[in-house]
Amino acid sequence: MNIQTLKGFRDFLPQEIRKRQYVLDTLKKVFESYGFEPLETPALEYEEILTGKYGDEGDKLMYKFEDIGKRKVAMRYDQTVPLARVIAQYQNEIPLPFKRYQIQSVWRAENTQKGRYREFLQVDADIVGSYSPLSDAEIIAVCIKGVETLGFKKFKILVNDRILFSNLPNRGITEKEIPIVVKAIDKLKKIGKEKVLKELIENGISSEKATYLLQTLEFEKPTSRINEILSVLKSMNINTALVEFLPTLARGLDYYTGIIFEVEVDGYEVGSVAGGGRYDNLIGMFAGSDIPAVGFSFGFDRLIEAMESMNLFPKNLNGNEVLIAFADSELQEKALEVSINLRNKNLNVQFYLEDAPLEKQLKYADKKQIPYVLIVNKDNFILKNMQSGQQKEKQLEKIINELTQS
Amino acid sequence: MNIQTLKGFRDFLPQEIRKRQYVLDTLKKVFESYGFEPLETPALEYEEILTGKYGDEGDKLMYKFEDIGKRKVAMRYDQTVPLARVIAQYQNEIPLPFKRYQIQSVWRAENTQKGRYREFLQVDADIVGSYSPLSDAEIIAVCIKGVETLGFKKFKILVNDRILFSNLPNRGITEKEIPIVVKAIDKLKKIGKEKVLKELIENGISSEKATYLLQTLEFEKPTSRINEILSVLKSMNINTALVEFLPTLARGLDYYTGIIFEVEVDGYEVGSVAGGGRYDNLIGMFAGSDIPAVGFSFGFDRLIEAMESMNLFPKNLNGNEVLIAFADSELQEKALEVSINLRNKNLNVQFYLEDAPLEKQLKYADKKQIPYVLIVNKDNFILKNMQSGQQKEKQLEKIINELTQS
Repeated sequence: MNIQTLKGFRDFLPQEIRKRQYVLDTLKKVFESYGFEPLETPALEYEEILTGKYGDEGDKLMYKFEDIGKRKVAMRYDQTVPLARVIAQYQNEIPLPFKRYQIQSVWRAENTQKGRYREFLQVDADIVGSYSPLSDAEIIAVCIKGVETLGFKKFKILVNDRILFSNLPNRGITEKEIPIVVKAIDKLKKIGKEKVLKELIENGISSEKATYLLQTLEFEKPTSRINEILSVLKSMNINTALVEFLPTLARGLDYYTGIIFEVEVDGYEVGSVAGGGRYDNLIGMFAGSDIPAVGFSFGFDRLIEAMESMNLFPKNLNGNEVLIAFADSELQEKALEVSINLRNKNLNVQFYLEDAPLEKQLKYADKKQIPYVLIVNKDNFILKNMQSGQQKEKQLEKIINELTQS
Repeated sequence: MNIQTLKGFRDFLPQEIRKRQYVLDTLKKVFESYGFEPLETPALEYEEILTGKYGDEGDKLMYKFEDIGKRKVAMRYDQTVPLARVIAQYQNEIPLPFKRYQIQSVWRAENTQKGRYREFLQVDADIVGSYSPLSDAEIIAVCIKGVETLGFKKFKILVNDRILFSNLPNRGITEKEIPIVVKAIDKLKKIGKEKVLKELIENGISSEKATYLLQTLEFEKPTSRINEILSVLKSMNINTALVEFLPTLARGLDYYTGIIFEVEVDGYEVGSVAGGGRYDNLIGMFAGSDIPAVGFSFGFDRLIEAMESMNLFPKNLNGNEVLIAFADSELQEKALEVSINLRNKNLNVQFYLEDAPLEKQLKYADKKQIPYVLIVNKDNFILKNMQSGQQKEKQLEKIINELTQS
């Protein structure tokens, strides 16, 4: 039998979860401070809710099956389509604008050779029901606040407006052609102008229109909407020097209708750690009416990777602060009492549960990376710092003081 | 199209999530204080890891399917079998004893008519790798601490030892017969002695043995193991008056090998809110060696229900503390500045994002149950308490003081 996880799926051991939890707790606080509210939806939905919403690739990569009641079901593929269902289903319970954040796993049968996971956490924040540039600004502001609060010092927000790809005077790109343009422009950095031009023409954009678009796009000025948003960001005391207009920014997804943005962190080259934009034609799909929306996602695994490479995690994420050890078996009960005492002082206390020699207990603390061991002897107490190896005899009260202040 | 969730699956809207989050945060802190560490495993496993581990019913209710790579996969059905896989897979990374808590969804195609969900959260804490009665005691202690910290005042821990159903002198129940005995005894409360006797005999236990078991079981005394555990609990300053020996306590699951327990809360009649026990023959199934374990689960949905019925949730679980409203459009920018100011004071601030009359903004705050509205007028600030309706003109600084202290 295969005693292992499926390809693309991960176990998270304690140290890893503590890092993830730290990032999530930090971001949740930021979301809440901006008035965003939590939402959760089921792992499984009726298949028809999800299929046809993510293009051909999405339909292919989605985990779908028939349940024992012969219902066709599918596993959560993103958090936006379920949000659209929720908006339609609870029209009376959820007053708009609805500012929600959602942090759940999604499942995609991706090619794992590309370093992608088949189960990963999405961290989304969206504002549903507002066309106002205030909403775009608030989405960018909460994103910046999140990145800052996680400790990133140097980063920038690349901003663009999808309107630049379409019906500007003389540009003449039709609504149907926008997805083709987006897909091609998105590759500018990777494959260069000439190949993008070729792709546009091969996909039915006239050579004239395609050439004009590529010649002029990079010299475009920010749209009036972008300027409005920048002005709101200034009122919000956001350092707008962080925000950089990039007329060739495209973002992969079809559905954006206005502003789009991505966050790039200096020194982390894998890709953007967050991105989003306005999408006014998607959320209303089940409600049967147009409902505007703007939002963004953090790339959670990338955030963790970037923070690790830049040492942005607090040092003491280990939940276990101290192990209470006993010098010999007869002292186990006394050690137990000490551990209860320390727990009542709000310390996280580990206790070796088997009758074992002191050496074995110290080895256990070392393997678990517990920073302190309090050794209970017959006549005294010793506090051992496991990193420095230093140990000192001290009164119990002094030890408790030292631990609660560390 | 069916714009709804699947039967047995739930959306969680903000107010509901805040309650759930409160319970989870409380329990996590308790687990951590006792040195338990978090673990997470994937939603999908190889089917062969999970099938055959939960009896016929489990195999029937499990969500199973073939993925696009033709792998047979199954959705997480509980958190104990994945724990057993983890213990086998990371033998070098995880030093024993391993005290872990795990809080993830599981999926079971239950009959929803019984008020059961098909997706629900399991909250488990287990100690792997220790035979010591200290471990049993610590599991009971952390369970009691959790129930207390959530605010329950009157509850009791029913305790038994599975050894009473089996090889006691003269009882002569073989190891193979234990599951039959457990299943029957578990129904004593519901169907009474006579029907249990009938069930035992129908299932091949001799009439003599069955009669003797039922005649004597309720007069049994605590086993020496139970007495040891009680004595450790006393050293831990646990009020052992909460712990009640009940020789007819059986618990449904086959796999327990020693102590078993359940927590009953006074005034909540639906059933126990937590339960667990020792199971020394399960965790080693993939590792290929005997690994002892003891643990328990909170019934998360029951905890929430019981807490609601007893008003145990803190009053202000609403994340939004204040909405900043503007008396007319021209003041929207000023209101925005105030909202940034308040966010910097660590308040959770909602801001109405559309240009709307004051009345509409107040209605929005009311619908969202936001406790305070700060109205930005041209020449002054007004703080309105949305519950009492009371409103007072105040200096901004005084309002901030009042809000940060509320």
